[in-house]
Amino acid sequence: MAKSFAHKHPLDDLDRTEIEASARIVRSAFPPDAEIDFRSSSLYESERREMAAFLKKEHDGRAQETITPRPSREARVTYYLKATYRLHEAIVDLGLGKLVSNVQLEAGVYGNMNLQEMERASQACVNHPLVRKEAERLKLQESTVLVCEPWMYGSASDEADNKRKFQCYMYMRDPQNPTNADGNFYAFPLDFSPIMDAETLEIIRVLYLPTSAKDWNFTPLDKYEPHAASEYIPELVDLRTDLKPIHIIQPEGVSFKTTGKLVEWQKWRFRVGFNYREGLVLHDVHIDGRSAFHRLALSEMVVPYADPRPPFHRKSAFDFGDAGAGITANNLSLGCDCLGVIKYFDGCLITETGTAISNKNVVCMHEIDDLLSWKHTLPNGRADSARSRVLVLQTISTLANYEYIFMWIFDQAGGITLEIRATGIVSTQPLLQQHTEYPYGTIVHPGVAAPSHQHIFCMRIDPAVDGFHNEVVQTDCVAMPVSEANNKYGVGFTAEKSILNVAGAFDSDLSRARTWSIQNPAIKNPITNTPVAWKLHPFNSQMLLAHKDSFHWRRAGFADHALFLTKYKRDELYASGNYTNQSQSETGVRGWAERKEDLEGELVMWHSFGITHIPRVEDFPVMPAAKLHVKLEPNNFFTRNPALDVPPAPKDTRSQMVPDVGTLKL
Amino acid sequence: MAKSFAHKHPLDDLDRTEIEASARIVRSAFPPDAEIDFRSSSLYESERREMAAFLKKEHDGRAQETITPRPSREARVTYYLKATYRLHEAIVDLGLGKLVSNVQLEAGVYGNMNLQEMERASQACVNHPLVRKEAERLKLQESTVLVCEPWMYGSASDEADNKRKFQCYMYMRDPQNPTNADGNFYAFPLDFSPIMDAETLEIIRVLYLPTSAKDWNFTPLDKYEPHAASEYIPELVDLRTDLKPIHIIQPEGVSFKTTGKLVEWQKWRFRVGFNYREGLVLHDVHIDGRSAFHRLALSEMVVPYADPRPPFHRKSAFDFGDAGAGITANNLSLGCDCLGVIKYFDGCLITETGTAISNKNVVCMHEIDDLLSWKHTLPNGRADSARSRVLVLQTISTLANYEYIFMWIFDQAGGITLEIRATGIVSTQPLLQQHTEYPYGTIVHPGVAAPSHQHIFCMRIDPAVDGFHNEVVQTDCVAMPVSEANNKYGVGFTAEKSILNVAGAFDSDLSRARTWSIQNPAIKNPITNTPVAWKLHPFNSQMLLAHKDSFHWRRAGFADHALFLTKYKRDELYASGNYTNQSQSETGVRGWAERKEDLEGELVMWHSFGITHIPRVEDFPVMPAAKLHVKLEPNNFFTRNPALDVPPAPKDTRSQMVPDVGTLKL
Repeated sequence: MAKSFAHKHPLDDLDRTEIEASARIVRSAFPPDAEIDFRSSSLYESERREMAAFLKKEHDGRAQETITPRPSREARVTYYLKATYRLHEAIVDLGLGKLVSNVQLEAGVYGNMNLQEMERASQACVNHPLVRKEAERLKLQESTVLVCEPWMYGSASDEADNKRKFQCYMYMRDPQNPTNADGNFYAFPLDFSPIMDAETLEIIRVLYLPTSAKDWNFTPLDKYEPHAASEYIPELVDLRTDLKPIHIIQPEGVSFKTTGKLVEWQKWRFRVGFNYREGLVLHDVHIDGRSAFHRLALSEMVVPYADPRPPFHRKSAFDFGDAGAGITANNLSLGCDCLGVIKYFDGCLITETGTAISNKNVVCMHEIDDLLSWKHTLPNGRADSARSRVLVLQTISTLANYEYIFMWIFDQAGGITLEIRATGIVSTQPLLQQHTEYPYGTIVHPGVAAPSHQHIFCMRIDPAVDGFHNEVVQTDCVAMPVSEANNKYGVGFTAEKSILNVAGAFDSDLSRARTWSIQNPAIKNPITNTPVAWKLHPFNSQMLLAHKDSFHWRRAGFADHALFLTKYKRDELYASGNYTNQSQSETGVRGWAERKEDLEGELVMWHSFGITHIPRVEDFPVMPAAKLHVKLEPNNFFTRNPALDVPPAPKDTRSQMVPDVGTLKL
Repeated sequence: MAKSFAHKHPLDDLDRTEIEASARIVRSAFPPDAEIDFRSSSLYESERREMAAFLKKEHDGRAQETITPRPSREARVTYYLKATYRLHEAIVDLGLGKLVSNVQLEAGVYGNMNLQEMERASQACVNHPLVRKEAERLKLQESTVLVCEPWMYGSASDEADNKRKFQCYMYMRDPQNPTNADGNFYAFPLDFSPIMDAETLEIIRVLYLPTSAKDWNFTPLDKYEPHAASEYIPELVDLRTDLKPIHIIQPEGVSFKTTGKLVEWQKWRFRVGFNYREGLVLHDVHIDGRSAFHRLALSEMVVPYADPRPPFHRKSAFDFGDAGAGITANNLSLGCDCLGVIKYFDGCLITETGTAISNKNVVCMHEIDDLLSWKHTLPNGRADSARSRVLVLQTISTLANYEYIFMWIFDQAGGITLEIRATGIVSTQPLLQQHTEYPYGTIVHPGVAAPSHQHIFCMRIDPAVDGFHNEVVQTDCVAMPVSEANNKYGVGFTAEKSILNVAGAFDSDLSRARTWSIQNPAIKNPITNTPVAWKLHPFNSQMLLAHKDSFHWRRAGFADHALFLTKYKRDELYASGNYTNQSQSETGVRGWAERKEDLEGELVMWHSFGITHIPRVEDFPVMPAAKLHVKLEPNNFFTRNPALDVPPAPKDTRSQMVPDVGTLKL
């Protein structure tokens, strides 16, 4: 029986009712007693051309509820059939209430981890007799509280048992304060690591970790060597007392308007999406009535570690594919994550049993003053300026030890900046205190080593610069050859442009100040006489360090080049491929780019970037945020500065002065 | 007669009385009727070892007024003797009231331009009969108001008349609105450019500018081709009306304390300096009672342009050496440059006649909320976080068309970020409207071309990491070779460190994630067992594009490598050398580095970085700020995160929520 979803916009993410309907429809394909472990249910977005036909009518002024035809409303559902532990993927037409497809995936293909099973695994592990035995070996006191952090197992050639597994990294609470459930257990890494069967929660094997600086022989310790705690929770820290409050007041309210998931602010108009995997997604991004991007999202991140010794050689987390930025997204109203007047958006996730849970306040949106947008002072002394106001959409995901703060920042001059702040706690491992150096990272606390690692992200840019028929131009800034005719003084340089019309992988080149633009060749800017365009200012980075023969390299296909161009396909959203957990090789953007298709104006751009993090002791016990920035901005898209019409700040918001000496008390 | 300056700190910049005393003492060396044109008078800072002996006593708790011996209080004065137009440099001991040295510099060495002479030159130019004649040639209407922007002449081999000159770029006010003194004359570039004798204000020659896209034959036009205005001042713009105010309120006042030029804030303690050339200078930077840097300042910037045709082949501004970031610093209380509760610092400059003028409010200091400093959420759901508060010291310099916003940003985790925002108006030149492309830049308005250019900055870092005996370590992140013994899975990587003990020039290498640290080899971090250190996170950039045979390359010795290390010398403060105006070659950091001295723990580090700016039409008529960041941060200097003790934001500053639909009116 067909159902009308006209009350929903085709780009809205699935709500509670839809998620539960998707589970029911999947379930109906199996006998009533079949046990199903649901992993994900999310909007299966329509082909962008189909979506665009709908959106065009909407932008032409039609109320979205009245528009026909409507793209099918479909869910993509992944689940394990518990009888076989095999992963399935179904597409469900929610309007028709039936399965479009439902396939059992190959053996060895696994879905995303979820928080419930990690909690179960953690409990099973700390209570397991084998683990208790290890605690005895270490002569831990009776009161010891063990902590287990189940990690994605990763991949290596020496494991091929076709089991889905966790690598359990073991810690304990501060032995001096074991009743404190909120202490920093990462300061107490233990020297053993069980491998757990993720389905049965049985321990397959207990590994011993290296506790020396370099040796490859790992002898279990006779006894745990005690050391001090390192705490960050405020009740265990002497807090500074010299910080005065700052209040952000918006007496007339906010400058944005929301209608469902539609956001309008300062010439911008876009839709907020959210799913278990990418977390926040931006759809149908328009500015000043013109289309810029069909879809923007961070697509994947991978965190490979530097210590080459087992089991750390497998330590490489695909945090989006193995777990999910949406699944791990924080409720942002609980902390002081946002300041000022905030709009929250909720997400909705499927549970293992097929019910839906609301993931409250996973996106916060607020305006921030960003200092000066522009200024000019005339020779006669007159100064004009405008302050920059930005709109920030923030999600924060906790992936075990680490926190990632993802901010999409819209500015009044047409810029869209993705700022990522990496914070949380560096992953730790034990190191005997007689070892005074650790070549694969840094000693961050007595007895605690923090291995070096990389964070490599991939941003998916689905462009629609005045429509889909776009092409990518690579621009290099190059010196002109010295020549009597054209450059006799040797100072000339030009922007060398090449159109990238074929799918492939491309590298950044800082020595040429390389950038990539997305242009619409059919539409000329009337001032510059060049095609209207947006430019990507890449975050130029060191790429993946792992060797081409390594599993890290084989699996993280997006991590060895700065840019990929692929031909748009509905199913190709995730840089690392749909299923990364224990993958043996990638099924993502590397392969798609290698198809070398003619892009024919149907392109998707992927930008990979990251940081190589050699930990500092200052990153412990909790890490000051490291910032990364990627910017998209109009480049000869408008005919003048789009922030030109920002009014000067009114007098009454201008500065108050501190007197010449001492502190002002207002 | 000796004078006591005990009321002043030895690092305080010169005040009005001292500047005028320095001029009197210089004047006393000449007959009473000698005409002197003063260019600069600024603190001649003592040898850092001498200064440090004084500072040590101060940090040990002595009131600075009571400390003896005191470093000599000296001024460095530059001036022209008008009889000869030769530049002189004098060192004046203000305490003894006498000249320490006073030398006439070589012919062809010129001092900095100043605003007064630029204004005089500008007036003389627009009223000059030769310029009037050009206006007639162009058949400009009677009401036309010409505008002259005198530029530093630059250097080229075809000019060797030993005259100090201006290259006068000519514009006019909007011919439709010539009574508007505040309009954007850069939208009306004219096709001629007088060369003016800077001493006599006579026009030496009138050049014609290229008005075609590429030709090297410049035929003066018969008639000015009219086009529309492009204005940015708010009274000529339709302003948007949908921006609601944000107020920054600090009900308990600021968290910093100032005592004269001493600033204390959140474990930081440093002194604010200011001079005509560098603008803001930071002295004696301590954190948590420990020394980090003796002196930090932006040392120079150069802006070479891409159009190879005369006279643009000479267009390359050393904005600090040719003019001065301090001379051109804005009074920041006039605009809405700062928000919240602000402390202003004044500067003091010498006039041509030797009087002093106060440069009011040239530095503003305020606190800003910088979103999250750190966060961690425990598996049990508890979330802890601290907001990041930063202290921003800002100066803004107007260098003809461009504005540079310089922000030194101190954070609670020990980071010092220099953020530069480039804004203002791109330099323009005429281009006939039949030319639809311009290969050396961008057409930003009908009839107006904006040539591409680079902005290359150099930051001088005078380190004192727990004392002066520091050394620089270059760290590269490199993959380990695959080996059965040490890296059999191919995933290992390490930080490869090399100590740079000899002066020289060094390049960035993003493929190795290269960074440079300054460490004190005598002091080990008790946790990491490595020398205490600070790390420079360079702004990796394309370096100077001009050819090695060009004058741009010869003069901008700092602009072709990312890093220079030199042995500390009292007189070596400016990356481009002391005198850049019409210099034929550099006398700065390139040569100092080439001495290849053993640094012997007496090093100064210089970081060059910048952007290559291919203008966008969105950069006109006023440019949205482009941001650059360089960061210094403790790297195994402390024993844990120094922002650990930042209290969580109190409940009452936390967010207010916007209801689900529409706009909130509070």
